Amino acid sequence: MHLHLSTWAEVEQFLQRSRVIVVPIGSNEQHGPTGLLGTDWLCPEIIAREAEKRAEILVAPTFNIGMAQHHLAFAGTISLRPSTFIAAISDWVRSLAGHGFEKILFLNGHGGNVASIEAAFSEIYAESSFAARRAGVALKLCNWWDLEGVGELARDLFPTGHGAHATPSEIAITQWAFPDAIKLADYAPLIAPSGPIREALDFRARYPDGRIGSNPGLATPEKGRALVELAAQSLVRELEAFGSETQPD
Amino acid sequence: MHLHLSTWAEVEQFLQRSRVIVVPIGSNEQHGPTGLLGTDWLCPEIIAREAEKRAEILVAPTFNIGMAQHHLAFAGTISLRPSTFIAAISDWVRSLAGHGFEKILFLNGHGGNVASIEAAFSEIYAESSFAARRAGVALKLCNWWDLEGVGELARDLFPTGHGAHATPSEIAITQWAFPDAIKLADYAPLIAPSGPIREALDFRARYPDGRIGSNPGLATPEKGRALVELAAQSLVRELEAFGSETQPD
Amino acid sequence: MHLHLSTWAEVEQFLQRSRVIVVPIGSNEQHGPTGLLGTDWLCPEIIAREAEKRAEILVAPTFNIGMAQHHLAFAGTISLRPSTFIAAISDWVRSLAGHGFEKILFLNGHGGNVASIEAAFSEIYAESSFAARRAGVALKLCNWWDLEGVGELARDLFPTGHGAHATPSEIAITQWAFPDAIKLADYAPLIAPSGPIREALDFRARYPDGRIGSNPGLATPEKGRALVELAAQSLVRELEAFGSETQPD
Amino acid sequence: MHLHLSTWAEVEQFLQRSRVIVVPIGSNEQHGPTGLLGTDWLCPEIIAREAEKRAEILVAPTFNIGMAQHHLAFAGTISLRPSTFIAAISDWVRSLAGHGFEKILFLNGHGGNVASIEAAFSEIYAESSFAARRAGVALKLCNWWDLEGVGELARDLFPTGHGAHATPSEIAITQWAFPDAIKLADYAPLIAPSGPIREALDFRARYPDGRIGSNPGLATPEKGRALVELAAQSLVRELEAFGSETQPD
Amino acid sequence: MHLHLSTWAEVEQFLQRSRVIVVPIGSNEQHGPTGLLGTDWLCPEIIAREAEKRAEILVAPTFNIGMAQHHLAFAGTISLRPSTFIAAISDWVRSLAGHGFEKILFLNGHGGNVASIEAAFSEIYAESSFAARRAGVALKLCNWWDLEGVGELARDLFPTGHGAHATPSEIAITQWAFPDAIKLADYAPLIAPSGPIREALDFRARYPDGRIGSNPGLATPEKGRALVELAAQSLVRELEAFGSETQPD
Amino acid sequence: MHLHLSTWAEVEQFLQRSRVIVVPIGSNEQHGPTGLLGTDWLCPEIIAREAEKRAEILVAPTFNIGMAQHHLAFAGTISLRPSTFIAAISDWVRSLAGHGFEKILFLNGHGGNVASIEAAFSEIYAESSFAARRAGVALKLCNWWDLEGVGELARDLFPTGHGAHATPSEIAITQWAFPDAIKLADYAPLIAPSGPIREALDFRARYPDGRIGSNPGLATPEKGRALVELAAQSLVRELEAFGSETQPD
Repeated sequence: MHLHLSTWAEVEQFLQRSRVIVVPIGSNEQHGPTGLLGTDWLCPEIIAREAEKRAEILVAPTFNIGMAQHHLAFAGTISLRPSTFIAAISDWVRSLAGHGFEKILFLNGHGGNVASIEAAFSEIYAESSFAARRAGVALKLCNWWDLEGVGELARDLFPTGHGAHATPSEIAITQWAFPDAIKLADYAPLIAPSGPIREALDFRARYPDGRIGSNPGLATPEKGRALVELAAQSLVRELEAFGSETQPD
Repeated sequence: MHLHLSTWAEVEQFLQRSRVIVVPIGSNEQHGPTGLLGTDWLCPEIIAREAEKRAEILVAPTFNIGMAQHHLAFAGTISLRPSTFIAAISDWVRSLAGHGFEKILFLNGHGGNVASIEAAFSEIYAESSFAARRAGVALKLCNWWDLEGVGELARDLFPTGHGAHATPSEIAITQWAFPDAIKLADYAPLIAPSGPIREALDFRARYPDGRIGSNPGLATPEKGRALVELAAQSLVRELEAFGSETQPD
Repeated sequence: MHLHLSTWAEVEQFLQRSRVIVVPIGSNEQHGPTGLLGTDWLCPEIIAREAEKRAEILVAPTFNIGMAQHHLAFAGTISLRPSTFIAAISDWVRSLAGHGFEKILFLNGHGGNVASIEAAFSEIYAESSFAARRAGVALKLCNWWDLEGVGELARDLFPTGHGAHATPSEIAITQWAFPDAIKLADYAPLIAPSGPIREALDFRARYPDGRIGSNPGLATPEKGRALVELAAQSLVRELEAFGSETQPD
Repeated sequence: MHLHLSTWAEVEQFLQRSRVIVVPIGSNEQHGPTGLLGTDWLCPEIIAREAEKRAEILVAPTFNIGMAQHHLAFAGTISLRPSTFIAAISDWVRSLAGHGFEKILFLNGHGGNVASIEAAFSEIYAESSFAARRAGVALKLCNWWDLEGVGELARDLFPTGHGAHATPSEIAITQWAFPDAIKLADYAPLIAPSGPIREALDFRARYPDGRIGSNPGLATPEKGRALVELAAQSLVRELEAFGSETQPD
Repeated sequence: MHLHLSTWAEVEQFLQRSRVIVVPIGSNEQHGPTGLLGTDWLCPEIIAREAEKRAEILVAPTFNIGMAQHHLAFAGTISLRPSTFIAAISDWVRSLAGHGFEKILFLNGHGGNVASIEAAFSEIYAESSFAARRAGVALKLCNWWDLEGVGELARDLFPTGHGAHATPSEIAITQWAFPDAIKLADYAPLIAPSGPIREALDFRARYPDGRIGSNPGLATPEKGRALVELAAQSLVRELEAFGSETQPD
Repeated sequence: MHLHLSTWAEVEQFLQRSRVIVVPIGSNEQHGPTGLLGTDWLCPEIIAREAEKRAEILVAPTFNIGMAQHHLAFAGTISLRPSTFIAAISDWVRSLAGHGFEKILFLNGHGGNVASIEAAFSEIYAESSFAARRAGVALKLCNWWDLEGVGELARDLFPTGHGAHATPSEIAITQWAFPDAIKLADYAPLIAPSGPIREALDFRARYPDGRIGSNPGLATPEKGRALVELAAQSLVRELEAFGSETQPD
């Protein structure tokens, strides 16, 4: 069940059965010479969509712009500041918790989002903690590449050249989902350099074509399919486990 | 050309040809007994996608959560506070303007967004105005129902019962785009009441099923197709006119 | 009854009789070669003062600085950023609502304020909506030129050259109220140009003497008197209607 | 010269002669059984207006709502939070500094404003200090009762019962300026208690009729006239001294 | 008892006996040619530590960075903006009040902090005042040099050359506490100039070596000891008086 | 060299030799039945102090309050909201970068700080990235337990019962540094439970005595000494490596 294709009455009924919702969250940012700008929000959206075909879960609209300040020197990147990101996540959570959702899982597609999402969770919880009341909602961050088995599969598929940004895993997933948007390029060097992440101009100087440590040329749509299927199955289990978790008194 | 399906290098090339981008923007909120929660962000996304087939325009990812505080008493609605909305729009604009976009048209699908979007524009411009420098970017808000000819067509299609929220126009557009998600209900009364908009509980007390002044039962996918086609054509012309507008010295 | 000329005990007594208050709100900004910088806050203040002579209404102090970022390239303009404006309106409303005022009508004198005032209302209501409680206060924005009959009178008085900024209507009202501060100038062109509003330097380049579409030379104190009298009568009726409006359960 | 009764062109000319402006700033808050709610913004406005008759100074519109959280338990009080107040003062200063004003004197009428105004000055200066650039504008806070000679006169006029809030000085000034709004009451006790200032309910419990340490019954319009005349003369000298102050290299 | 050297259980027990806590608060900023950068947070920390040896009081960790924007042109100064400072103080207070502390005394070591600390108190109280509820906590600002008898002693010890920044009083206190960190310099002029405080570059131009009106060469460790002992005794009495103060109904 | 025990002139000289500074950063929060509330800011302070004895490094004052919302149900915990924490870190960094520091290493003592510190770094960098300019400063977060060799030593010393909060490692360090403040208790169970971290009441329900997964009874001052010595040596090397890192063009 997709929230945006449902009516309010249908959601009200869903809440009789379950208090769990998954929010795909990512970023719109450069992904090297061949990666789509939407890669990081498309991957969790694709995985959530496949999971929705397999089980009765509720998928929220995709939170498609995240924290990508370090990619801003490459055209097409759109970033929120962490403070804006935190405020927006808070509003999403307050909206959903107000309807009675008690477990909100953010399925994340961008490593650069992790710190700000966790900071947002703490900002939300802090409101309850300062007031000495229960939050009434449990928040969980889950990167799609950390879903059960997915990391192992990625290492099997790409024993070298996986890297940290514009990885063959994420490129493969979007190739499978958008076969008409597969791009080709010569990568030089084949495996991109690695190093620290700072502000945008520093980033572009270190990583001239945008990749970090990766060889996206290893991606194929078929490998993408395998990753998505496994991730979707693991996501369903993750949501079940999260949903059945009880709060201590 | 869709930003999220392009690479940074393709966007860099696009910027050699044009400095214009369109951002579909809407809201995820209740739309009466049969309207989809995503209606207000789906409509501008659908229209922009159709326009993209007709002309070489660049479409940004959809800004899918807007200012919908008054709908929060209906399950599934997600809202930003105006202050968060303004901050987020500012970050989008600063990101895009940083890449060299000089004309950003927000194609809006939600009346409740208008004030906050315009306030956001002023917030962005104010930074330049206080510093006595040019903004370097022109911002335009365009509601899809205000695109040339669209209002007339809507009045022709729905001479009565169009109303202000959960209108047959927007329902028809989503019916055309998502025929599998067409919902049916008995509307009582046939045409919903009208009145002021305040906070969420007041809203639900005034408009028990979520509609304002509308009879969504008049919507058909075919009417939706007609609205989308006209709107897409008008959007292309709107973008051309905006793009060819020159700044005074 | 003017709030600033009353004691707290008198206001406490007023609240036994009525829960309605009117707040004149405007802007301090350039108004062309002859218009007073205070025009936009003086007009609603003048109208409210005349209304107060005719009926038992309570008039708050004037909110005299608004959102005028686009006028900052002209000396004497003072502007709040929208975010500051929203915060300040929120504090005014929270103060007044805390005393028991249930209907707050902002009588506005500046078109550029509209979006930010409405965004402020939504920011205030959102606090209640997220918490699923009633706001306890109803907020209404009313531009003085939209008061019943005023637009028609303005069109009668100024069939051409009314324009959108530094209009003969507002100039006339201040001429009537401040006859010692009437200024004269040659207008070239007689009717100023029209166009979009962006940041301050863009504005000054488009509208070199500050006017938009208007010929303030048409203003006379006598026309101002007619506008004020009509507006004052309409304001009294507007407040009565607002005050007798009931909240739905 | 009053800013709000001038045109932008007149202000532009004034700036050729002087870079100094005075902003009356106060608060709208309870002033005991007989004091006007507007007392604290009316006093500096009245004094500035009298000064303007005596010398060529430029008077800005009155900043009429300040930091009065402790008075909120008395009807009619309107308060900004300090954070809002700081933001608003910053916007006023940035607007005026942008026009070329180099010396901005805030003539204050409310003791409770002092900390927030000084914090606002530091917030404004900090922007320059962090960026290692000159601010280009000097800010000065001057309470009207601290103007040269005024404190001595107040002590002469009211050797006992002056107190700290709803003082006979400020009541006298408004009596002189608004003789039609003079209110009478029996004060019990004659001189109100003194003590600390905390939140609003604590304040009302300590100071049941709103006064702190004062006997406003001592006020007369004639004493008000004397205070205003002296204060106006001192303000003119204060502005001259401030204007002739040079910045170190 | 020092909070940072206690366990939560010990603090819980302390709260059975007392609801009072003292927070040393200062600034890390230049203090002339010989003053330590930590002077303003070390002084209240030293005094509180000595007081803790004399009586059963609870001392919080030191709030060591304050509002020092005007000192930023001298290396080593660290400053918060007033808005940040207010937010941080609010969080400290909300944390402590949440545990049941009802009296929080900020023992301050930096004059430049005063306005922002008082603004912070008002910001905290305002939350209660707008909501018409008691704050439940009383906040008090006490500069160490205003503790009973301390000003007199400082005037006795330093009849001339005390000044306003990098005073011999504060230098003497740190000399006594950190005898290994005593620095020497020739002061030229012997007594530094005085004047207004604005942004950092203006400050450095006026006060080239950082001092204002002082001759720190008069400081000795022995004088520091005398000041600390007296201040510590007075602080104990101040806390007792504050703790025994009752709230009005 | 300690910043707070230096003069501005000494810091200016230091900047001729090095552009690196280390900021100990932690939290003041419950650490189980026997851990000191200051544990998380004392540990990095202790390690930095030892490192300072071994090499010419510059140590900033300790940032002693961090993000500890989840511990607020235990008396004595003081927490900043993430948004406040981010603002404060930004001000520290802007202050230090303004003096010419190019490498700022935050030596962290609290796992709960990590997300907010990294979000703060991104917030700071974003300012440069949006403006397309170099930041001029490189920021590094280093948890003391991640310093080279420290994790291995901790695992050797505490093969079981190390856990995640109130660990024997951190308890041991404070035991060594504050032998007079060693506390004893019976731990039941010997090894505390583990699980997720949410808001404060949820935390206390899950972890009744405050520990997570740890047995602090294993700590001894001697083990603390070994950890501090190794960490101090590694910190010196970490600072050398960070200082010699060059920025790409």
